[in-house]
Formats: sequence, C-alpha cells, structure tokens
Amino acid sequence: MSAGQEHGRGPDRIRLGMIGGGQGAFIGAVHRIAARIDDQYELVAGALSSNAERALASAAELGLAPDRSYADVDALIAGETGREDGIEAVAIVTPNHHHYPAAKACLEAGIHVICDKPLTVTSDEANELVEVARSRKRVLAVTYNYSGYPMIRQAREMVRNGKLGDIRIVQVEYVQDWLTEPIEQTGQKQASWRTDPAQSGAGGAVGDIGTHAYHLAGFVTGLKATSLCADLASFVEGRVLDDNVSVLLRYDNGAKGMLWASQVAPGNENGLRLRVYGTRGGLSWAQEDPNYLQFAAYGEAPQRITRGGPGSGDAAAAVTRVPAGHPEGYLEGFATLYKEIAEEIRANRNGDSTGAPFPRGEDGASGVLFVEKTVESSKAGAVWVDV
Amino acid sequence: MSAGQEHGRGPDRIRLGMIGGGQGAFIGAVHRIAARIDDQYELVAGALSSNAERALASAAELGLAPDRSYADVDALIAGETGREDGIEAVAIVTPNHHHYPAAKACLEAGIHVICDKPLTVTSDEANELVEVARSRKRVLAVTYNYSGYPMIRQAREMVRNGKLGDIRIVQVEYVQDWLTEPIEQTGQKQASWRTDPAQSGAGGAVGDIGTHAYHLAGFVTGLKATSLCADLASFVEGRVLDDNVSVLLRYDNGAKGMLWASQVAPGNENGLRLRVYGTRGGLSWAQEDPNYLQFAAYGEAPQRITRGGPGSGDAAAAVTRVPAGHPEGYLEGFATLYKEIAEEIRANRNGDSTGAPFPRGEDGASGVLFVEKTVESSKAGAVWVDV
Amino acid sequence: MSAGQEHGRGPDRIRLGMIGGGQGAFIGAVHRIAARIDDQYELVAGALSSNAERALASAAELGLAPDRSYADVDALIAGETGREDGIEAVAIVTPNHHHYPAAKACLEAGIHVICDKPLTVTSDEANELVEVARSRKRVLAVTYNYSGYPMIRQAREMVRNGKLGDIRIVQVEYVQDWLTEPIEQTGQKQASWRTDPAQSGAGGAVGDIGTHAYHLAGFVTGLKATSLCADLASFVEGRVLDDNVSVLLRYDNGAKGMLWASQVAPGNENGLRLRVYGTRGGLSWAQEDPNYLQFAAYGEAPQRITRGGPGSGDAAAAVTRVPAGHPEGYLEGFATLYKEIAEEIRANRNGDSTGAPFPRGEDGASGVLFVEKTVESSKAGAVWVDV
Amino acid sequence: MSAGQEHGRGPDRIRLGMIGGGQGAFIGAVHRIAARIDDQYELVAGALSSNAERALASAAELGLAPDRSYADVDALIAGETGREDGIEAVAIVTPNHHHYPAAKACLEAGIHVICDKPLTVTSDEANELVEVARSRKRVLAVTYNYSGYPMIRQAREMVRNGKLGDIRIVQVEYVQDWLTEPIEQTGQKQASWRTDPAQSGAGGAVGDIGTHAYHLAGFVTGLKATSLCADLASFVEGRVLDDNVSVLLRYDNGAKGMLWASQVAPGNENGLRLRVYGTRGGLSWAQEDPNYLQFAAYGEAPQRITRGGPGSGDAAAAVTRVPAGHPEGYLEGFATLYKEIAEEIRANRNGDSTGAPFPRGEDGASGVLFVEKTVESSKAGAVWVDV
Repeated sequence: MSAGQEHGRGPDRIRLGMIGGGQGAFIGAVHRIAARIDDQYELVAGALSSNAERALASAAELGLAPDRSYADVDALIAGETGREDGIEAVAIVTPNHHHYPAAKACLEAGIHVICDKPLTVTSDEANELVEVARSRKRVLAVTYNYSGYPMIRQAREMVRNGKLGDIRIVQVEYVQDWLTEPIEQTGQKQASWRTDPAQSGAGGAVGDIGTHAYHLAGFVTGLKATSLCADLASFVEGRVLDDNVSVLLRYDNGAKGMLWASQVAPGNENGLRLRVYGTRGGLSWAQEDPNYLQFAAYGEAPQRITRGGPGSGDAAAAVTRVPAGHPEGYLEGFATLYKEIAEEIRANRNGDSTGAPFPRGEDGASGVLFVEKTVESSKAGAVWVDV
Repeated sequence: MSAGQEHGRGPDRIRLGMIGGGQGAFIGAVHRIAARIDDQYELVAGALSSNAERALASAAELGLAPDRSYADVDALIAGETGREDGIEAVAIVTPNHHHYPAAKACLEAGIHVICDKPLTVTSDEANELVEVARSRKRVLAVTYNYSGYPMIRQAREMVRNGKLGDIRIVQVEYVQDWLTEPIEQTGQKQASWRTDPAQSGAGGAVGDIGTHAYHLAGFVTGLKATSLCADLASFVEGRVLDDNVSVLLRYDNGAKGMLWASQVAPGNENGLRLRVYGTRGGLSWAQEDPNYLQFAAYGEAPQRITRGGPGSGDAAAAVTRVPAGHPEGYLEGFATLYKEIAEEIRANRNGDSTGAPFPRGEDGASGVLFVEKTVESSKAGAVWVDV
Repeated sequence: MSAGQEHGRGPDRIRLGMIGGGQGAFIGAVHRIAARIDDQYELVAGALSSNAERALASAAELGLAPDRSYADVDALIAGETGREDGIEAVAIVTPNHHHYPAAKACLEAGIHVICDKPLTVTSDEANELVEVARSRKRVLAVTYNYSGYPMIRQAREMVRNGKLGDIRIVQVEYVQDWLTEPIEQTGQKQASWRTDPAQSGAGGAVGDIGTHAYHLAGFVTGLKATSLCADLASFVEGRVLDDNVSVLLRYDNGAKGMLWASQVAPGNENGLRLRVYGTRGGLSWAQEDPNYLQFAAYGEAPQRITRGGPGSGDAAAAVTRVPAGHPEGYLEGFATLYKEIAEEIRANRNGDSTGAPFPRGEDGASGVLFVEKTVESSKAGAVWVDV
Repeated sequence: MSAGQEHGRGPDRIRLGMIGGGQGAFIGAVHRIAARIDDQYELVAGALSSNAERALASAAELGLAPDRSYADVDALIAGETGREDGIEAVAIVTPNHHHYPAAKACLEAGIHVICDKPLTVTSDEANELVEVARSRKRVLAVTYNYSGYPMIRQAREMVRNGKLGDIRIVQVEYVQDWLTEPIEQTGQKQASWRTDPAQSGAGGAVGDIGTHAYHLAGFVTGLKATSLCADLASFVEGRVLDDNVSVLLRYDNGAKGMLWASQVAPGNENGLRLRVYGTRGGLSWAQEDPNYLQFAAYGEAPQRITRGGPGSGDAAAAVTRVPAGHPEGYLEGFATLYKEIAEEIRANRNGDSTGAPFPRGEDGASGVLFVEKTVESSKAGAVWVDV
C-alpha cells in the first residue's frame, strides 16, 4: 500500500485463535493489536492461560464467546475443527517450551501457525515443525517482528540492488539493561521464565534477543553465517543462563560479523542496531528510531533516508501506512508481518504462496540452531564452530 | 493502562460512522486505524465520499453493509437514527469547510462527534458547535492528535507538578516542506484543498499545522495566549493562502512565546517541536522522535526521559501500550484520543464525564480563533491583536 | 590551507598588544590561544588590567617584558609607538564600554585593532570608529568569532553558489541558561558587567549573544534586514537589561526571519543555531556540534556534510587544520579570524586588502545598530522599526 | 586549570625539537599546534625530513634557524647536545619503523621523547625503550591523544569513583572508511606507508587505529586484558596488512570486551567510540562529538554530561580551556597531553614526577604487544591467546 492508504480488508478477515496471552502477558497483547491494525483478522477463540480462571476472565475482556475459550490446546483444536466458522490460524504466544507441542498439534490439525520466537527449544523440534508444515501445506510463520519495519525493508532492498556493493562487514547488537540485577529472584514474571532453562531452553539473552539480532542481519544482507565463535557470560550471581553474548561471525561470502547481545548494559532499553558495510556503501539502522536509515555511498555525504521520504523505495512503501514524518513504531512493524501472513494464508487456500518476506519456519529453525551453536562454542571455551 | 496491557474492550465497542475518508483520502484511514488499535469501536456506517461510486467502493473495501453506505450526511443521519443498532458516534474527516454543517447535523441528531481539525472555518461556527454539543449533552471531540503522545502527557504532567517552575518561555514550531513548489497547480489533491480559501478557510499553513502547534503549546503549559503579532507569507507564486507563519505570543502569566509554522522549508517533513522553559527547568520534545523527552532541571545534567523508562510518570503510562524502547508512533497517539473519547462516550451515557484531556470543542474553537487572529494581525501589518 | 597543513608562519609574526584580559578574564585567554594556534602573532605588550598589581602579575605569567606591561591604553600607545619593535596590532578584550575609547586611540596612533563584540555601546561611536579606521587606513576587525567555523563558511558558500535557491526563511537562535537566576547579585563577575547598562550598553542578552546570532544570519545568507519587531523581556527580578529576546525580521529580498536569544532557558549552554531555507534547499547548523552541516536539496534525502568530508568545499577547506572526523572547535574558529586578520594586516602594509570574510568595523556597527533598534522597538510596544 | 583560564606559561617554555613532520605530513603539524596551544614549548630545532631540500624548506617555513635544521637524527643530537640552549625534548612524528632508533638515540643522549603511536614495530624494541628511559631517567611519552579529551578524563574519574560499579562489559570501536578502495596503489602517501609492513609493522588497521581503541578502553576502565581472540581481514585486493579487525577480549576482573577497528566501513570518518557498563551504571562516548558523555545510573534517566556542565567533575575541569557549550576538539585534546608532558619534564628536572595520566612508554609497549597478539591469534585461526 502507499502512504495514506489502509492495509485493511475487513470483509475477508482471517479467523484467529490464540494460545497463551492471557492477562498479565506482554506479548499476547502485542500480537492482538498487530492483528487488528490492518483489519485482516478476527480473534474468535483462545486457550489464553493454563490457569482456567484467568483464561475465562481474559476471554471475556477480549469479547470472545465463552464457549470458544478453551482450557488447553487440545480442547481448542477439538472445539474449533468441529465448527464451520472455526479458526484458520493460531497465534502461539506462550513461554518458549510450549511452542513446539502447540505448533505441532495445530499444524497437524490443519491450522496455520503464527509462532513467537524462538520457534522451539531444540533444533530437532524446529526441523520437525518445518517438515510438518511442509507436508500439511500449512503456513508456519515466526514473529521476528523487527523484519517488519519499513526501513529494514528499505535496507534489504538497497543491499539487493547493489547500493552497498559486496558486503564485507556486518555489525549487529541488541542491548538492554532490565536484567542488570537478579530480578528473577523477586518473582518478576517476565524475568523468571526467561532465565529458567526449563522454560527458555539453553539460551538466555542469546535466545531472547540474540536470535532477533542474528535474524535481522541475515534478513537484510541475505548472507548465511558459516561459522561462529561465541563467548557467553552470566554476570548476575545465581543466574544460570547467559545475560551477555559476544559473537564473532563468518559469512558465506567472506564477510565478517560481530554480534553483541546484552541484558545487563545500564542505560539501554531495547537497543537493536544494525550496521552493514560493503565495497560501495554502508548503512546503519536503530530500532529505537526506526523511521530513519543512515546511508552513505562511499565518497558521498551520508544521507538520512526517512520512511516515505526521498530515497525511500518500493519495499518500504509497501509496508507503510502514514506519510513521511509521521512516525510508525513497534506495533506497526509487527502488524506488517500479520498482514503479510494473512495474505499468505489466502494464497495458501489456492495452493499458492505470495513469497512475502515475513519470517517462516526455516528462519525459526535457523535461529534455534544459532542458539545451540553459540552455547556449544562458548562451553568449549569460545572456539569456532560451524553453523 | 500499563505497558504490556491492552486498552481494548472488544465486548463493548462504540458503533461508529464516518463522514468523508473514502478511497484516496489520507486522514480517513488514519482515523480508522486509530479507532481499531484499542478495539473500542466498530465502524458500521459511512458517508465516505460525495462521489457515489467511490463511496460504495470504499464501503465495500471496509466491509460496511451496503445499506449503511450513505450518499450524504442527511441520509446517514436518517438511516442510522432509525435503527436500533445505529451509530452512536461519527468521525468527520472531510475538508475543513464541510466540518461545520456535518457536525451540527450530527450533534443535533444526538450523535457524538469526533471532528478533525480545524473544527470549522469561522469562530462563529465553532462557538455554535460548542453550544449545540453542550445543550444536546453530546461529546464533541477535535483530533489535535499530537496531544495523545505519551511524552506530551509526560511534559504536561511535569509542568503541572512544578518541575519547570513558573513558565517564562514557550517556543513551538511545525515545519514541513511539501508545499515548497506550487504542487496545487498540478492537481495534487491534498495540496489543492489546503491552499484553497473556499475549502480551507482564511488560513493556509496556519490552519493546517499552525493550529496544531498552538494547541500543543497550550496543552502542555496550561497557559492562555492573550495577544499575538503575526507575520504571514505566501512565498509560492500564485498561492493565495499563507505558507509560512511567524508569530510572537504573550501569555496570561507573562510568559513569551514564538511560533513558527512553515510548509516551504526544504528538508523538513513533519517537524513539530515544542520547547518550554521555566524558573526551575526546561523541556524539549519533537514529534518525529516522539518517545523521548529532553528535560533539564536548572543546574543539573540534562536527562533523556523515554516513554516507560526511568522518570516517566503516570500520565504517560496511562496512554502507553508497549514497554520502553519499543517505539510507539503517530497512529498510537491518535488511538489514545480515540480510546479516551470512547470512555467519555460511555461516561456520557450516565450523564458523566471522565475529564480526560483529549481536545474538545472549546479547544477547537480556540484554534479557529487563533487562525482568525493571526490573519487579522498580519493583514494589518503584523501588529499586536488580543486573542 | 588544506587538512593536515599548518596555517603558521612563525618567521613573520605580527607583534600584538592586548588591552584587558588580565587574570580571571575569560575572553582574553581565548584571544591569546586563538592568536597562537596558527603562529601568526607574538604577544609582546599589554595593558592587561586597570588594577596595576593584577596587570603586572598577568604580564609576568604571560612572559611579557615588565617594561611592556602598561598601566593604561595611553601608556601602551606612548610606550609602543616609541619603539622600533613596537606593536602593530592590538586586541581589545575589555567590557563593552571601554571598547570605543581604546579602539579610537589605537587607530589614531596607527595601530590595527582587533576588538571583541559588540564593537561599541552606541551607533555613533561605532560609525566613528569605522570612519577613523578608513581615514587612517588601518584594519578594524570585530570578533564575531562564530563566522570563523568551517561549516559556516561552507553554508555561506552553498548559499552563494545557489544550492538553496532564493532564500525565503531565516531562523536563528542563541540560547543559554546561565542567567536563569540573579547571579549578578552574588557578585559573579561575568554576570555583573553584562547585566549593567553602564558597562554593557542598552542591550543585555541582545547585545551579548543576540548580536552574534544576527551577524551569523547575515554572514551566511548575505541578506540585509530592513525592519524588525522585537519583544524583549527581563524575567529575573531586579534585572534591568533584557534576558530574553524575541524578534521578527524582514529582509531586503522579501525573506522572513525569526531570532530568539535567551540567557534564561534551562538546559541550554551555548545554543547558537542557524537554519536557512530557500526555493531549492535548506540547511541547519548548530554551534555546539560545529563540524556538521545538515543540508537538504528539495526532494532529495537530507545529507550530513562534515568538515572535510564529501560535499565539503573550498571555503571550509581553506580554514580547516585537521582531517574529517577530527573535530575542530571554538578556539579553532576563533583562530581562523586571527589568521585572516594577520593576512589582512600584511596586505595592508602594501595598501592592499585580502577581501577575507572576517568581520570588520561595518559589521560591528551593524550589530550595534541592531541592539539599538531592538530596544527601540520593544520600548515602543514591540512595533516594527526600520533598520 | 579552570574554564576560561589559560594553561600557558610562556616565560618557561620547553625547548623542543622535531623528527619528521616536514611539508606534506599530517601529524607533524598536529603536534606543533598542540605544542603551541598552551604556550609550553618553543620549537627550535628539527630533522624534519630525510629529503634535505624539504627539510630546509620546512624549517624555514616554521621559522627555525637554518643551523638548527639537521639532516638526520644523529646530526640533530650532535648539534643540540653541544649547545647551551639545546633542545630538552624531541617529538618523533615519522612513520612507525623510524620510531625505535630515533627514540633510543635521543633518550640515550638525555633528551626527553614524545613519540607518536605505535611506539615501535616490535615488543622487544618497545620494552627496550622503556628500559632506556627508566635507566636514563628521561620522560618517554606516547601520544595516544584521545586520552587527552576532557570527557574521557571524566569517564575515567567516574569509573574510579565507582559510579559504574564493577565493570562487566567494554565495547570499543574505531571505524573509518578511507581505505575502502586500494588508494595505496595510487601513491597516496598516508595510505602507502600505513599498508606497508616494512614501514608499519605487522599490523595495518590494528596498529594504526586498533591500538588507540585498545588504549582508550584500558585508560578509562583501569582494566587489563588477559586474553584475546582476533579475526583480522584484508578485504581490499592486494592489501597485505589487515583493514578490518574483530577482537573478543577478556579482562582481569572477569569483564568481557569487544573491539572493532575498520578502515573499510563507508560513511565513517574517525568513529572512535567507547561504551562501558558495570553493575551500577553505563557510559558512552564518541570521539566525533567529544564534548558529551552519555551516562546512565541503573534505574535512572540517562544523562548527557557536557564538558564543563553540571555533573562534569575535577578531572575534566583540569584539562578544559573554555566554558561549557564552547566545543573543544582534537587539537585541544592533543594539547592537553603536551601540557602534561611539559609539566612532567619540569618535575623531572628535580627527579620528580607529576603522576599525570598522559600515556607513557609502558602504555606504548602494551599497545605494541596488543598488535603482536592480535596478529598471532588471527594467524592461528582466530584462537585465544594470552596477552
């Protein structure tokens, strides 16, 4: 769509269910707003919480029919697959370790899956989900949401169009400070499960945010990492999982990369930043100021390309809702994935695919592998491992 | 709401109609997305275009029932007031000169009105609307949307809490470049009506963006301008209305102000910026980077307060959807007004009011008066006039 | 000179005297460092303080010969004009009211004068100095030092080369906070004389910093103000002179200007900023980040031109000492004036002039007139007056 | 000194010689300006070029007496040690491979040495110089000039005062783009020797700029690196030495570090940036905007501390010449080292030392070791090596 046009197509909304995302959850609300922004979905069912009372209260608050608020995933599938107006797709927004069984059951029941990242806790699980989605011909999307930002699309397009030449250097970082102190020991819910290997898997910061950074670098550059050397740290006393992640990367074309992820860097809120340099130019983007892309052709004055402004191209325009100078943010970027997934689901009805760039099962599996390999590398003394 | 919670209350949505906002309009789509974000409205009817064909096509695209797509405002009112599930509120998103008749008819029919700015073309019209809304006990809201940004709420709260001491200086500007060349002569739709006195009223840039700046300054500081001296220019050949606006202001407490609005300043997209200085501190905010508020207590190091971060208080938290570091933008700020208006409409059912700070009819009238007075001052040679 | 080359010409230094600038003074030290940076001067004499003891101590500290430390201006002139190696030029760095008599006496004695701004306290005095310099064929320079910054030279060159097209809008501001409270009542030396009409003249902030802003706008744009409307305020209780200055300006080519100067805006240290917009482009510069110039050609992505980087031209290169990315600052900008003045003095020996753009007596007189006219306008109720 | 005071002490200047730095050299002019700014030195002799003609012309331009322009280092030492007014100190500003013999000869002749970095080409040479300086009781200074910036002194002081708590993370980078293309093959002088192992030593970018980054990190944090893992690249075809440097670091207190240096990253001029995070707070500084220090105490709003502004302490004030808001730059930071070295030389006359933090021989040797170890690590496949 172009600026000032709406993405919405109210008349043909996808019927959506949600697993997880009951009261008190952060990311469930984000998914719901994202699904609403372009009016492509109608949330009609849910298994919103393993706590039955909270599940019902959450459903009521959201206006779900009481009989479509289910106790668990199995009940959701059973109830919805028996209805003519049953859900076509499900959003999975639970802690990590529930992703795999929920996604598998839904895909096998013929329900498209939109899963939060990381896709699963192990690579085996992730690969299996990819295979199930393939064999059942269902959409499996993973919400590496930062890939939905217009200026990330712009960056990707510029790389593809050769504006940077051959890529030599990839610098990516994702820096926060909210785990600087051991707040998981005070019962803070978000911190508790994210620092617990039983719920998060083998990666702490590397799984929670490092995978976002890793995906974004690949999304923009189109490069594949071939090996890495990772030094993980758990700085906070009593913390089992990593809270600081330093990685050297080598890419398939010979490019070199560095990736830093941290949740113990005071003064940083959600500092995802990407810089890419090639033989002809360089670019820089920061999630906290997402409407800008810094670009410098070698030998020319650096430019600030704004979403919708001069120099901003088709790829960004396709995912933009408001004119230049009217900032879009995190929710809009997230909504773009939801919109692209809706279009993919519609294409899927005809056995087709849009080819839209939203992250899919393979990207999710690649992220899980990244977590495994960084942990493997670090445990062996920060040695190089193939990816 | 607090970060990570949703504003929505799907089960009790306000039934909304829309006047204007058919295909090709910019601000209509914005209002619709804003109404959807917090799930407080259901768009069910519209008089979307004076062009019958476009009206129908637009309605179909939005999923409106064909019998609820009306040819004009009168038909809309006639159709909807006769239904049990008729609209309770209407969003008016036409060019300026249609605001007054549409709003008046709706209010008189008992329909709450959400009107884009400027409220009307003349002060008399605006005052009349305020009076009609008062006597009919209906909500009359004006979408000075920038007042919905969380960090603007934060700024307002800090002024009220005395963090700046007594206000001495108010500097506000709203700077664009899209009218640098006479694009209205090429048929560009947005430019054409905005530069046409018959559709826009007596003000050009001063009405289109100057009123936003004027409102924002008053919204944050709580001060009232008592007199002004304005020097308007129409730089582009053949342009009748102003495209550059320079104003000196004096406020009721003795503070001094400067306001600059321009649509011919190359390199500026939507540069609304506010700076306020008092005896104890100063603050600065820019619409294009809306998640930050720069604050300096006199004699202390300047701080960057982020939406949801340290130093960000209750007023901002109340209108925030996602955590610090996850940027919200233009649409979310707009959505906040829609949410507050929904709550006001519900309170209104009980003869009550929330007292929420969204802009109301009086603010709209004040903006129209500002346009009239700047034009009056400038025509007289840029002399001081009372407001 | 080009980057990495030195401006210096040690072998042919100008012999310099200084009036004012003894221990405890701020601007005297600045002048001395500026004179040293390019090695074009040798400080050999001074009347450094009206306090004899401080004068001697200051001279000793600076390595002046004791017999060339004089009690006052008359003694300086008498002593130096009698020597074969007497001073050729003098730097006047006293409070404002001493500028006129000192400069006049030196010029009449055939000594070139480098005078801090404002040149004098009244226009009559300033015009007289210009005339004396002319008739005696001596250099009269005024240190509007901000005109020495390389990116200001770049901005001026871009305006001259038509990169901005016809200038329409000039926005300039100079904002500080150090007089937010009545520190002059505590005996702070810098504040005391600057807020005292007997020493400063009729202008407070307008004379101290407003004149810098006014000069800079004219220096870059080449435009002349034809009329102005000024609203001065003295916000701090007990303060006689203005501490906040709001001015509307009209320029000879039809351009409009706004000038804001304040010394009571908390959070601002030395915030001189200039923005200029024309039919083809716009630029923005800020003194506190002086190595950058923001430039946008209309319809193209905004560029950040750096001193010495791509897009930076000959005018900037001519006054640059170190390569791009190695920041130059306040002292280097000041030094550039000193270097240009040295070259002018050498040219003057042959009855010649370099035509270099350092500010001269006429610019100083123009600044004094600006102060007089803003005060006149404001006293009459902020009415328009011709300049 | 405090703001507004001068560092100078003209009457007791150090007599200085220079080795290298003839016409066309960049860094020689920088050293000379730096030496002049605070008036602590008098340049009286030189062996400015191995090209006799250029040496003489350069000397004349600088105002040296013809008989004190020497053909080589030996002649300089012979000539100057025979004079009563001979040089006390020498600045060595040649390509790297000349540093060692020149420094050694001067130190052995009793002349204090100010040497550009890297100190030598090998660790053995560096260690020997340190030993010679020690045994001859002479000052051996190395111009890691970025340690002279006031806000770097401020950062160091804040770390020492515990404002950051225990340091966990050190992120440092030094990024340029001037070697993006093989300009050394076109005869560009600066590029030619820096990419030639015979003149530069084993390190390319790592020696030229990586050592600056490495020194700065240690200077501010007080930590010592114990091991490193480095991946060097030579991206430009035909280039022997590295032009991109990725290093993981481990520090003696358990902190983790990442260091990136590149000369092939388009859009970067001289991007030296340091970020340090501890248990209580974090800070960030960038060389291209050197007058600001970003600081965030954990849980508080981030602050921008300016040189001389609120929150800026004694260590910064001691090396500051002008008030807050009046930017100092590269040359002033360099001048601060020269001033501290001058004071050290005076103290040395009495067998004393000031203990000032300017970099000394040991720091130079540490930098050379860093180059050696990164090359060793990288050659072995980017494995960990002890430092």
